[in-house]
Amino acid sequence: MARRIGKQSILLNNPVFISNSFTCAGIKECNGPLGKCFDVHVPDDKWGEDSFEKCERKMFGCVMHGCAKCAGVKLDDIDAVLSGDLLNQTISASFSALDFGGSYIGLYGACSTMAESLALASCLIDAGAISNAICLTGSHFCTAERQYRMPLDMGTQKTPTSQMTVTGVGGAYVGGNDTGAAINAVTFGRVIDMGISDANNMGAAMAPAAADTINAHVLARNRKLEDYDAVITGDLGKLGVELLCKLLSQYGYNVKNNIIDCGCLIYSEDQDPHMGGSGCGCSAIVLNGFFLPKIKTGEYKMVLFVATGALLSTTSSMQGENIPSIAHAIEIIYTGGC
Amino acid sequence: MARRIGKQSILLNNPVFISNSFTCAGIKECNGPLGKCFDVHVPDDKWGEDSFEKCERKMFGCVMHGCAKCAGVKLDDIDAVLSGDLLNQTISASFSALDFGGSYIGLYGACSTMAESLALASCLIDAGAISNAICLTGSHFCTAERQYRMPLDMGTQKTPTSQMTVTGVGGAYVGGNDTGAAINAVTFGRVIDMGISDANNMGAAMAPAAADTINAHVLARNRKLEDYDAVITGDLGKLGVELLCKLLSQYGYNVKNNIIDCGCLIYSEDQDPHMGGSGCGCSAIVLNGFFLPKIKTGEYKMVLFVATGALLSTTSSMQGENIPSIAHAIEIIYTGGC
Repeated sequence: MARRIGKQSILLNNPVFISNSFTCAGIKECNGPLGKCFDVHVPDDKWGEDSFEKCERKMFGCVMHGCAKCAGVKLDDIDAVLSGDLLNQTISASFSALDFGGSYIGLYGACSTMAESLALASCLIDAGAISNAICLTGSHFCTAERQYRMPLDMGTQKTPTSQMTVTGVGGAYVGGNDTGAAINAVTFGRVIDMGISDANNMGAAMAPAAADTINAHVLARNRKLEDYDAVITGDLGKLGVELLCKLLSQYGYNVKNNIIDCGCLIYSEDQDPHMGGSGCGCSAIVLNGFFLPKIKTGEYKMVLFVATGALLSTTSSMQGENIPSIAHAIEIIYTGGC
Repeated sequence: MARRIGKQSILLNNPVFISNSFTCAGIKECNGPLGKCFDVHVPDDKWGEDSFEKCERKMFGCVMHGCAKCAGVKLDDIDAVLSGDLLNQTISASFSALDFGGSYIGLYGACSTMAESLALASCLIDAGAISNAICLTGSHFCTAERQYRMPLDMGTQKTPTSQMTVTGVGGAYVGGNDTGAAINAVTFGRVIDMGISDANNMGAAMAPAAADTINAHVLARNRKLEDYDAVITGDLGKLGVELLCKLLSQYGYNVKNNIIDCGCLIYSEDQDPHMGGSGCGCSAIVLNGFFLPKIKTGEYKMVLFVATGALLSTTSSMQGENIPSIAHAIEIIYTGGC
């Protein structure tokens, strides 16, 4: 049996291995500082498809097949796919699951989806409900811009606090062999609203959710923040991380330089990403492409991965609502590997 | 440990009690044949709010609080809310979770959400990952019409195969006391596309997913279809049920009159619902308001609840895509109760 610890956290009975991962990224992401970490470089915004949405879906399919192939298993041997994305009715995730003949568990956690899917899959695997799963999520700059903001053709200028939606899909095959990394505890976050209503300032909206979930997890685990080699946040961007550090200090934590944000890593300054990267794909490709290999070699012995999601829609924004946010956390440990 | 049976099904270690349920329904639903079964009757389309979306959200809040109150527990004593809805970025589910201080697990399964949330929650409770949860979902005719089809003000005529989105939210408190009903096995469905692309013929799009999941569940349980007092489908409507029965006959099942569709029950003919009710709220209020009380008194000893979801968006339809669908199933048994 898993053990409920604290109000929101779960200590798994046995660590669940993150056996393999696979990533697929766009041009700008591949030209950025982490470009070499991504498995498939998408050559342009459409990748031979006739719409951006179909390109995004193709990337989901590519990663789903990639995860299985790298793990040396057939898609048929996988019990479940847990997935979601940013598009209305999560069409990228669900349409790409047509290739898969097993159980599909559709999620909506906005940019927290990578952590949400891994947290749920690890609980289900630990329980014996499924034996393995592929968890994946992603985003596409062009589909997100036209859905959430303006059609690209308008060339709308971005505000200083805005972030850039990552074109990328990342996935992990969990429940297979021990290849060096495993999930041993998870925290499902709660929905937080601290009054931010500017849809171009997601970092500020999501920072309180990240702080809340990190606090809940660290307390439940009876640990200090510095016990983690890295606390990897999803896509807070420069401003969001600054706010997160302030909030954690207010909670009484000794905030050092182990807080690393995927949104701050993915682009270089000269790529003009404003506050940094965002979108489901941001933490998905940075966790799976950049951090997991480092955990598997033991460079990081224990990390807390905290993906953050802003739960807004264009309708809620137009109706004058704030932006509630959520963050889910998974604790990943180095297992020594095979 | 739960036990994986068949390709997609899970037999729980211990049955998970559906301790209480609560429903909130709109005018047309309350005037229909099941009107008396619903706990709160919403007096009009806005319920004192300034938009349909805010009304839908208020209904979610009403049901979340109602579930806790009926169970005699505080919201604070509940570990998790599992929820989702039809609106872009599932704003009704996530905004209403602001009232709740525990873990929020956001789902997207379209109209399959009631079964998806109950299936996931029962697995997590059985595993000890959480001790209890509220599962809820719903829809609102006016928000769905303007998002998926046309603004109501246009008075667009409905096609003969169309269904009517239910205004209603239903929820269940799971993991509490034995009050007569429990989940003992679940099946997570797979995404199916049989070539239907008419967004006004959801029944036809979803019937193959329902047939596939029912077949998977019944095979995994090594049962016959007639072993169930009722196989309760989500919202296939008249045409969808007809297709489902044909498909099940083709699979070799002896199809009798134990297949009951929530979409066919909720309105009377003189309410002119065309093929019947639809939307997340349809199966949510019919299961929680109408069927659960019958299970708890032993009128039904064992049912299979199969909520079906059409995974389309306006974007996918406009881009000429078919409508992939999914169905999740939960097997609910009469426990004798307290």
